[in-house]
Amino acid sequence: MAAKGIHHVGVAVPELDELVRTWETLLGATVEHRETVEDQGVEAVSIRVGTSRIELLRPLGPDTPVGKFLAKRGPGMHHVAFEVDDVAAELARVAAQGATLIDTAPRVGLFGMQVAFIHPDTTGGVLAEFVSHGE
Amino acid sequence: MAAKGIHHVGVAVPELDELVRTWETLLGATVEHRETVEDQGVEAVSIRVGTSRIELLRPLGPDTPVGKFLAKRGPGMHHVAFEVDDVAAELARVAAQGATLIDTAPRVGLFGMQVAFIHPDTTGGVLAEFVSHGE
Repeated sequence: MAAKGIHHVGVAVPELDELVRTWETLLGATVEHRETVEDQGVEAVSIRVGTSRIELLRPLGPDTPVGKFLAKRGPGMHHVAFEVDDVAAELARVAAQGATLIDTAPRVGLFGMQVAFIHPDTTGGVLAEFVSHGE
Repeated sequence: MAAKGIHHVGVAVPELDELVRTWETLLGATVEHRETVEDQGVEAVSIRVGTSRIELLRPLGPDTPVGKFLAKRGPGMHHVAFEVDDVAAELARVAAQGATLIDTAPRVGLFGMQVAFIHPDTTGGVLAEFVSHGE
């Protein structure tokens, strides 16, 4: 029972098109997916940088979690997602060890993945997400 | 000429021992290296989370870059490092494309790697680092 590795780093941005071009030019990134996730209040572009993945997240409005993050902290790294086999099982495990959960049950995220967030107070200020491809 | 992938995510923290234990417990992390990098003003612990790597960075004093970051923004994600073949060549390439550099030449970082930072204004608020194992 542990994370397999970083699935992606989520980045809060005020707009997408120009920044996608910047990442393409400077980091050799390639776009793999673009999707509006109403449940999370974002339009997301998933880009690959070599073997890794960055998600650029544009808030759909100021009252969304990413919108509030942008207003408070400005653009930048928002969360880091770790791939696990079973999001619900990992949530139960870390909750039993004292972690504060933002999501007490998995939700459907980008790519239709199962996702859930752990409160950053638990991990030293890092907003951590568990993601899995499972049902 | 492009990044091969994320080498590590750097996290600014006020202390190391307790947070290392937290990451071990919650994410199944294992410590691979601990080193004081005077040049960067940090004591760093490199941990593996599955196939990925997180660097926990404790500032050696309030006037260091990470110390100032902590005072201004609190603990959390500080930078994302991308592995490249040749840091100096990548710096020259992105500078020619208009990127603002923090380091105009590679420095020696953790593990004795060649490292250099690009200004976050260039990448939409993300402090990006190039790292390589080369000479």
